[in-house]
Amino acid sequence: MTTARVRVALLGCGTVGAAVAATLCDPIGSSRLASAIGAPVELIGIAVAHPDRPREGLPASLVTSDAAALIDAGADVVIELIGNTPETLGLVTAAIDAGASIVTANKALLATHLSELTSRAASRGVDLYYEAAVAGAIPIVRVLRTSLAGQRLTRVLGIVNGTTNFILTTMEREGRDYDDVLREAIASGYAEADPTADVDGHDAAQKAALLASLAYGRVVLDADVAREGIAKVTASDLEAASRMGYVVRLLAVAERVAPEAISVRVHPAMVPRSHPLAAVDGASNAVFVEGEASGPVMLQGDGAGGPPTASAVLGDLVAASRNRLAGTCEHAPALDATCRLVEPGETTSAFYLALEVLDRPGVLAAVATVFGTHDVSIESMEQVGRATAARLVFLTHPATEAQMAATALQLEELEAVTALGALLRVVEATR
Amino acid sequence: MTTARVRVALLGCGTVGAAVAATLCDPIGSSRLASAIGAPVELIGIAVAHPDRPREGLPASLVTSDAAALIDAGADVVIELIGNTPETLGLVTAAIDAGASIVTANKALLATHLSELTSRAASRGVDLYYEAAVAGAIPIVRVLRTSLAGQRLTRVLGIVNGTTNFILTTMEREGRDYDDVLREAIASGYAEADPTADVDGHDAAQKAALLASLAYGRVVLDADVAREGIAKVTASDLEAASRMGYVVRLLAVAERVAPEAISVRVHPAMVPRSHPLAAVDGASNAVFVEGEASGPVMLQGDGAGGPPTASAVLGDLVAASRNRLAGTCEHAPALDATCRLVEPGETTSAFYLALEVLDRPGVLAAVATVFGTHDVSIESMEQVGRATAARLVFLTHPATEAQMAATALQLEELEAVTALGALLRVVEATR
Repeated sequence: MTTARVRVALLGCGTVGAAVAATLCDPIGSSRLASAIGAPVELIGIAVAHPDRPREGLPASLVTSDAAALIDAGADVVIELIGNTPETLGLVTAAIDAGASIVTANKALLATHLSELTSRAASRGVDLYYEAAVAGAIPIVRVLRTSLAGQRLTRVLGIVNGTTNFILTTMEREGRDYDDVLREAIASGYAEADPTADVDGHDAAQKAALLASLAYGRVVLDADVAREGIAKVTASDLEAASRMGYVVRLLAVAERVAPEAISVRVHPAMVPRSHPLAAVDGASNAVFVEGEASGPVMLQGDGAGGPPTASAVLGDLVAASRNRLAGTCEHAPALDATCRLVEPGETTSAFYLALEVLDRPGVLAAVATVFGTHDVSIESMEQVGRATAARLVFLTHPATEAQMAATALQLEELEAVTALGALLRVVEATR
Repeated sequence: MTTARVRVALLGCGTVGAAVAATLCDPIGSSRLASAIGAPVELIGIAVAHPDRPREGLPASLVTSDAAALIDAGADVVIELIGNTPETLGLVTAAIDAGASIVTANKALLATHLSELTSRAASRGVDLYYEAAVAGAIPIVRVLRTSLAGQRLTRVLGIVNGTTNFILTTMEREGRDYDDVLREAIASGYAEADPTADVDGHDAAQKAALLASLAYGRVVLDADVAREGIAKVTASDLEAASRMGYVVRLLAVAERVAPEAISVRVHPAMVPRSHPLAAVDGASNAVFVEGEASGPVMLQGDGAGGPPTASAVLGDLVAASRNRLAGTCEHAPALDATCRLVEPGETTSAFYLALEVLDRPGVLAAVATVFGTHDVSIESMEQVGRATAARLVFLTHPATEAQMAATALQLEELEAVTALGALLRVVEATR
């Protein structure tokens, strides 16, 4: 850098990009940034797909459709907010090669390419920051990367998808069923018109992969993450959970299951009401971390939306800019830890399982026999409804996923079992 | 630094110091640190007051009583965990002058000397980190300093004293009175034998000063912090609060009350049950921040104890060491903001006030007249007990501290008022 100011290029100007651009173009916002950084920030351009669209408050002279040319213009920091298009990886790579530090919110890109982008940035001596890729305004990336980096972490549990948390907490509060609440969430904008990425856990799995990579220092790809969505959870499950002292949340879990083995997964889970995550309501996000020294630490806040995500981008811009001015970049912990990623079947937990059964003599005995065959011990059983059909709700003692999957498979084959309901992992209370 | 390793000197080896030393002397702990930092860490010495005391697991060769000589030995990072003795400021200053970066947990030192130590460190080109000085394992200092630094913050509310939170939440849960719970807390080690620093809010005021300085970029000293403790809060107040939908917590408040004015104070407050801070139980700490972009963000965890505080120290050691290896230090935001610190009387909130009165006709009218005289509007009133004495509990609409102080003063002079109970500020619900 030749002068003491920071040249910033912005790729993408959707909801988050527009919020970032607004701060950079606002005299008060940019002077606040300058004071945090120690030098002024200059926005040198905004690359967009539709340059002719009107953009209130943004100088038209900054807007371009040529992202590659903007990267070539020599920015100190390139902020990538395009989303995961076929061009994004190439643009980010080009920006790194051109010597720019990167700030990105692109979880999909990183959940596949974290390792190569990290080493590319390190070898070029630039920063790769991605606070906005996980849990919006919540500064969990920086906290894992630095604040909690000096110790062994044992468990990361995240509510990292606002849509599913909104759906589950609304179902719980209002006693309504999944389809009904989902329809309303789509109508009111809390869920996308095609909610698959959220409700099936794809979005959470990308974030779980990033959290696991950060927490345990090895690459975890989103494809490595065992994943179940929330579509099978019913109002009746939430009621039963509540009677047992639990709430149900879709969790991203990255857990050390042995000294050198981790499990990374996304699934709906039973969270004890005394656990801090149980209080996380509506579309909020939260990440709960347990470290050997720190003990439990939880961060909570808005997980999505323009300004909260822009807040994370601006924090990264502050850090990257300070490093540029100092002529350095931050050491990115190596992703070379040898800990093994366990197969889904290996992990152990207590389970909640709901079954629809015909209400006739001998059914419970048949069902109990199946649990026994697979050595799954039942902690409690509850029968709901009593007509021609009944619903059995089981809470087991800890068992492996493999045991439980075999149990479920065989239960499904019983003639008296008409449907298998939700299978929920039970989260252990915090110490 | 001549070789790619980081030389660390430790001043003080009490609960926290011993936990830090244990990590540095443990092969697994130090190799984890080395991986986070990118180079090995070498503990070059531990300065203690009583070098002859046995210290399990620490090489006797590292222990010295000569802190000044240890500083002169040329550490890259000096970790100060002595506490606030008459020598501490001199030692930290000497370490900065000798070119070492500082990691300290010393809230008392910083709540008085933050400004001079910050500029001294900046002019010497070294880091001054103090994550452990506020809220133990919770990484609020780094989050305020970097992650949320690019935006205007509007409110910081902290539960930053575990002892008082333990006392208040135990009183609430068990319906017991202050003296009773305090006695037990002292007996069980949750409170110091002399609990004054905690229950009178001195400890929280030092942390409030640091949080305010970080959040608003101007120096706030602990002497600037308006302060009230929890001794006047009764079980009956907690019951009344609960009926009204609140819990009572001792809060450190650093709040923007006008575009260029802040209020910094410590007092027990009524927190709406829907507020995330209301779920913070026992000896836990939490800091709730509202930023214009981020919206509400809350961090929660263990606020005290050896390992949690050591966790914060180690996170700072990682950051300081990375900077040393890169030959740089982190830009510390200037403490030059011009925002004004308002006088306590100027701030506005709704209030809870409890009065012990003689139960005879006309008392309520007399009391209500006093509120009216000072233009304090009553939102609700509740009478508890009905014998020769009664207890009146008021919730007001928003009024200034000055109005409320004048009201309280005049109420106290009424013949029918036998005692003034707790005066609690009501925290606004989050958006």
